[in-house]
Amino acid sequence: MTNRSGLKEVNVVFEPIGISIRVPSGQSIYRVAMKVHAEMSGECGGRGRCGKCQVTVENREAVSSTTGIEREVLTDDEIASGKRLACQTVIQDDLTVYIPPDVSRGSRRIQVESVDMVITPNPAIRKLALHIQRPDLSDLRSDINRLTDEIDCAENLELDLDLLEKIPSVLRESDWQVSAVLWDNKKIIAVEPGDTTSECYGLAVDIGSSKIVVQLIDLNTGETMATYGAENPQLMYGEDVVERVVVSEEKEMLRHLQRIVIQEINQLLEAVLEETGVNQAHVYEAVVVGNSVMNHIFLGLSPRTIAFSPYTPVITTPYNARVADIEININRNGVIHVPANIAGFVGADATADLIASGIFETDELILQLDIGTNTEVFLGNRKEIVTCSCASGPAFEGAHITHGMKAVDGAIERVKIGRDMAVQYDTIGDSAPIGLCGSAVVDLVAGLFRHGIIDHKCKIRRDLNIERIRTDGNLPEFVVAWQNETAAKKDIVLTQKDVNEIVLAKAAIFTGCSILMKRMRVSNEQIKTVVMGGAFGCYLNPRNTIAIGMIPDVDPEIISFRGNLALLGAKMLLVSSRFRELERECRPKIKYIELTNDPDFKSEYTNALFLPNRKPERFPSVSLRSS
Amino acid sequence: MTNRSGLKEVNVVFEPIGISIRVPSGQSIYRVAMKVHAEMSGECGGRGRCGKCQVTVENREAVSSTTGIEREVLTDDEIASGKRLACQTVIQDDLTVYIPPDVSRGSRRIQVESVDMVITPNPAIRKLALHIQRPDLSDLRSDINRLTDEIDCAENLELDLDLLEKIPSVLRESDWQVSAVLWDNKKIIAVEPGDTTSECYGLAVDIGSSKIVVQLIDLNTGETMATYGAENPQLMYGEDVVERVVVSEEKEMLRHLQRIVIQEINQLLEAVLEETGVNQAHVYEAVVVGNSVMNHIFLGLSPRTIAFSPYTPVITTPYNARVADIEININRNGVIHVPANIAGFVGADATADLIASGIFETDELILQLDIGTNTEVFLGNRKEIVTCSCASGPAFEGAHITHGMKAVDGAIERVKIGRDMAVQYDTIGDSAPIGLCGSAVVDLVAGLFRHGIIDHKCKIRRDLNIERIRTDGNLPEFVVAWQNETAAKKDIVLTQKDVNEIVLAKAAIFTGCSILMKRMRVSNEQIKTVVMGGAFGCYLNPRNTIAIGMIPDVDPEIISFRGNLALLGAKMLLVSSRFRELERECRPKIKYIELTNDPDFKSEYTNALFLPNRKPERFPSVSLRSS
Repeated sequence: MTNRSGLKEVNVVFEPIGISIRVPSGQSIYRVAMKVHAEMSGECGGRGRCGKCQVTVENREAVSSTTGIEREVLTDDEIASGKRLACQTVIQDDLTVYIPPDVSRGSRRIQVESVDMVITPNPAIRKLALHIQRPDLSDLRSDINRLTDEIDCAENLELDLDLLEKIPSVLRESDWQVSAVLWDNKKIIAVEPGDTTSECYGLAVDIGSSKIVVQLIDLNTGETMATYGAENPQLMYGEDVVERVVVSEEKEMLRHLQRIVIQEINQLLEAVLEETGVNQAHVYEAVVVGNSVMNHIFLGLSPRTIAFSPYTPVITTPYNARVADIEININRNGVIHVPANIAGFVGADATADLIASGIFETDELILQLDIGTNTEVFLGNRKEIVTCSCASGPAFEGAHITHGMKAVDGAIERVKIGRDMAVQYDTIGDSAPIGLCGSAVVDLVAGLFRHGIIDHKCKIRRDLNIERIRTDGNLPEFVVAWQNETAAKKDIVLTQKDVNEIVLAKAAIFTGCSILMKRMRVSNEQIKTVVMGGAFGCYLNPRNTIAIGMIPDVDPEIISFRGNLALLGAKMLLVSSRFRELERECRPKIKYIELTNDPDFKSEYTNALFLPNRKPERFPSVSLRSS
Repeated sequence: MTNRSGLKEVNVVFEPIGISIRVPSGQSIYRVAMKVHAEMSGECGGRGRCGKCQVTVENREAVSSTTGIEREVLTDDEIASGKRLACQTVIQDDLTVYIPPDVSRGSRRIQVESVDMVITPNPAIRKLALHIQRPDLSDLRSDINRLTDEIDCAENLELDLDLLEKIPSVLRESDWQVSAVLWDNKKIIAVEPGDTTSECYGLAVDIGSSKIVVQLIDLNTGETMATYGAENPQLMYGEDVVERVVVSEEKEMLRHLQRIVIQEINQLLEAVLEETGVNQAHVYEAVVVGNSVMNHIFLGLSPRTIAFSPYTPVITTPYNARVADIEININRNGVIHVPANIAGFVGADATADLIASGIFETDELILQLDIGTNTEVFLGNRKEIVTCSCASGPAFEGAHITHGMKAVDGAIERVKIGRDMAVQYDTIGDSAPIGLCGSAVVDLVAGLFRHGIIDHKCKIRRDLNIERIRTDGNLPEFVVAWQNETAAKKDIVLTQKDVNEIVLAKAAIFTGCSILMKRMRVSNEQIKTVVMGGAFGCYLNPRNTIAIGMIPDVDPEIISFRGNLALLGAKMLLVSSRFRELERECRPKIKYIELTNDPDFKSEYTNALFLPNRKPERFPSVSLRSS
C-alpha cells in the first residue's frame, strides 16, 4: 500500500508495550515511537549524540543500514544481534521494534512523596453559601444583583459570559439556595445549586523539566489530598531545556510541546481526582510553577528570548490564565495562576522556592540553592535578595556520568571510603547496585579527595598502586563496586571524565554563590541558613558538598535539604493569598545578576575548577591531603 | 429524489431575488424563505395571524391547498391568480415563489440620518505611542515590563494570552517603537508596530427591535465617520419582542436569533469600514444598546424572565464582553460594552436615552418618552428619576392600522383638517400617498376630535352627513385620500378600529406619565422639558399629541422631538468615559415602577381611554367640541 505522496505505508509494532501503528516509510524509529508515545530515553532529542536510544529490530532488512554513529556507539556483537540506535534507523518495511526497559521511559503516574507544611487557609478562592431573595413584584432586582447583593465585595464583580448565561436556571432549579465561588474577590467563577462549600479544591502543579508533579489541595483545610507525578513528556525532545527552546522555534512544535504537557497534567489530575473522589468542577484554581522555559511553553509563549543573550523572558509578573485558553480540566471558569518569573533562567519555580523557604519573612541571611540542570542561587532576607542562575548541567541527576543514573531502585546513593580503601555503599531499595546517583558521585569525589586519591587539580592519581584504580584507555578510573557485587555483573566505576563532569558542575554553582556573596559583601559566617532543594531526588551529604567546594565553607549544621520546595511553594500560593501579597511586595527587592556579565565571573569560575578551590584559604575546614 | 427520512427533496426558487434551495418537501414557504434569507414581512412570525406574507406561486399543484385562514384574508380573484400566504402553504414539489416588493423586507444597509452632538473625547480606549528600551545585558527586564513601564497606569494590567503571545515579535519587528491600546486603564488590548495613534475608532450600535443602526466613531475627535442601518433580521420571528422571547425558549433558536443579529451588525460594520477605509483592527470597542430583550439575546442570555411576571432581567449592570465570546468583527482583543439595563422592559437603550437627554446632569424636571412597541417613560432630574414601561403597541409604527405604514416614501406624515372638511396632507418624498404613518394618525384623530367628528368616547360620528364619513360593514370610517389621489388608486381611510388602536396606545402612554407624576407629586407646570424620541421615524405634532391626551397638558413649546437618542447615547458612552461614570453614579437614583402593580393603574388607564381623558379638567388647553 502506498499513500498519496507515493511513500509506502508500513506497519510498525513496538514491544513489549504492544502498540502498533501504520505510517509512511522513510521515518526514523525514534520519530515513529514519539507518535505512539512509546517514549524512550534520548538526552539529545534524537540527534545521534547521546547513544541512549538503543533498541532491537527483528527484521534487519526492513530498516536502513547502520550509520557511522551507530558503529561508534555499538559493539559489533550488538549490531549483529539487531541492536540499533532508534534515531539513526530509518524504517523501510513492516517492522517489530523491541524497546528494552532501561531505554523505555518506564511507568507513568507514579505516586510521589513530597515535603508538606501546615498553612492557615486564606485562599484566592472563596466559596460562599447564599440564600437568595426570590423575585416578586415588590422586588424587581435582576438575577445578578440578587446574587451579588449577598456577597460582601460585590462592586463590579467579573463574570464570564458562559457562566452568566447559566445562572438564571441554576438559581431557579436550586430554589434560590446556591454556592458562589469567588476568585480574588473580583470574579465570580462558579454558581452551584445548594450548599457545596465543603467541596473546594485547588491544584498545585510543578512542571519540572524532567518531571511533572500535581497535588490536589483541600482549600478549606489546606490539606494535601493526593500527589501524583510523571515524567515530563517533553523529555523526548531533549533533556536540556535549551534543546526544547530550539525545538519550539517552529510554532507548530511550540504548540505540540505545550499540548503534551497539558495532556500529562490532565492525566495526573484525573489520577488525583480518581483517588480522592473529588469532582473536577470543584477544583477552582491551579497554581502552576516551572522554570521560565517550562512556564513559557505551558502558556504557549515562545521561550526564544530566554535562550539567547540577553536572556530576557516575555513576562515577569504573575499571569492568570483562563481555562478556556489553557485547557487544564478543572472547573471551566476556573483560573490558572502562574506566579512571576524572576528572570530568564530564574522562573516561577524559583519564586515558589522563595515562598517555601521563608526567605521573604526573615531578617537572617539565607543562602538558597535549587539544584538542577540550571541551579538557581539566592542570597538575602526579607529586605534584599540577589539571585543568579548557574549552568550546572545534569550531572547531579546522573546524566553524563559513565554509570550515572537517577535516584531510583538500584542506585548507589551514599558512599564512604575507609582508610584501607574499603568502599561502603548504600543502594536505594537495598538491591544489588546498578549505578551511581548524584549524591554518591559527590561522596566519591569528596572521599577520594580526602584520601588523596584525587588531587587538588581534580586528577585521579595513577601512582598509588591501588587495586581499585585502573586505566581504561588513557584515563584512570576508580572501581566503586566489583562486578560480582553488581546487578549487571559489570564493575561500577567512577572515571576521570566523571570527576571532571562533577567538578564543572560544582564550579558553576560555587561561582554563583561566591559572586552573590561578593555583591552583598557577605562572609561565610554571616550566612545563618543554607537551604538546598532540587528535583534530582537525593540528599547530598552537607560535609561532602562543602569538601568538593560546591558551596561556601559554612558550618555543615546550618545546611538543610528540602526536596521539592517549588511544589510546596505552589501549594502555599494556592492555600493562602497572603503569600501572593508577600511575593508582590518582595518582587522589587529581588535583584538578578547575569553571571556571565559579571567582571569576576571568569576568575571565580577558574578558581572553582580545583578541589575544593584554587584558593584553599577559602575552605579552612577542608584539610588538604594532596598538593 | 428522497432524503434519508423518506421525504422527497424539492427545488424552490425565490423570485425576483433569484435564490434557489434544495429542501425536503413538507415545509412552509415562509420557513424555507427564512433559510435562504429571502426575508418577508410577518408581524405574527409565521402563525397565520397577520396576513402579510402574501406571495404568488407559479405551479399551484406543487403546494398544499388553501386553508381557511387564506380564504379569509385573500379574495377569490387573488387565490385564482396564485396568491398564497407563505406561512400557510406547504411545499410538495419543485416550485417558483414570487415575493412582491411590499412583502419583501426591501433593501438592506441603507444609510441612516441621525442626531449628532459634539462631545469632548475622553474614551475608555487610550492609544499610546511608546518608545521602548531595547534589552541588553545591563537591562534584563522582561518584554512585558519593558512595555508596561512606559505606561502610566501599569499596575496589574490585564492582557489576553493570545495577545501576550504576539508581543515579543511585534516589539522586535517594529524595532521597539509600538502603539499600545489600553481599555479602561486596566487591560492592554492591542500592541501595534509603529505610531498608529491617529487610527483609533469605536463602534456605536443600536439594536432596535425593528432596525439595527451602527455608527463608526473616531475616538480621537469624537466625530461620526459613517452611519449605516438595516432591518433587524429577527423581525422574521415576530415584530413584537415578546414573540421573540417565545421563539428563543428553544436554546437553539436563542443562539440563532443571537447569530443573525451579530451577522447583521458585522455586515453593517463592513459597510462603514468600506466607506471610510478604516481597518477593522483599529476599531477597539463597541458600545451596544438595545432594549432588554434585544441585549439579552445579543449576549446569548435567555430573555425568558423578562417576559413573565415579575419581569426581571438577568443583568442590570454594564457588561463588558470579549470579542472571543461575541464575535463582532472589531479588533479581536477589543471589548463589547453593553450598558446597564434598568429593568425588565427598560433596557440599555433607555440608559443611553438618559445619557443623551442630559437628565443626569440637570436640576430641572424632565419628562422623557422613548416611544415604541413598549414606550419607556422617565420623569426626574439628576437627583431622582422614576421610570416605567408602557405596552403601547406598534400603532405608531403603522402596524395594526388599516392603511398604516412605516415612515417611508409615500407615507402621509402630516394631516390638517379644514373647517370645510378639506383634508390637507403631506407625504414623505412628495409622492402620491400609499398609506398613513404614525404621526398622520395622531394628526387625524386630533383633527377629527377638534372638529367633533370623533367624540369624547372616541367614536366616529355617523350622524353628520359628511361625504368623507362612510360605513364599511358595521363600523364607520373617514376617507383621508380619495382613490384618484392615491398611488394604489384605492381610498385611504381611517377606520373606527384604527381610532381604537391609537387610543389604546396613547392611553397606555398617558397612564405611565400620569402615574410617574403622582409618585413624584409633580404637576404639569413643574415639568420644564418634555423629550420625545423613538425609532418610529416621524415627529409627532406636539399640540396634537397633547390634544389626544397622550402626554400631560404641558406648554407645547417645551416639547422637543429628538429622533434616535439611544444611538446618540451609545456614541456618548463610547467617546467619553465620563458618561459611564455618570451612569454608574446615577444608577441607584433610578426607581422603576411596575405599572400593572400600581394601585392607580386601572383607574388611570380607564380614564385615558377617552379623548383627551375621561376627566377633561386635566386638559384645560383642549377645547371640547363633543359631549
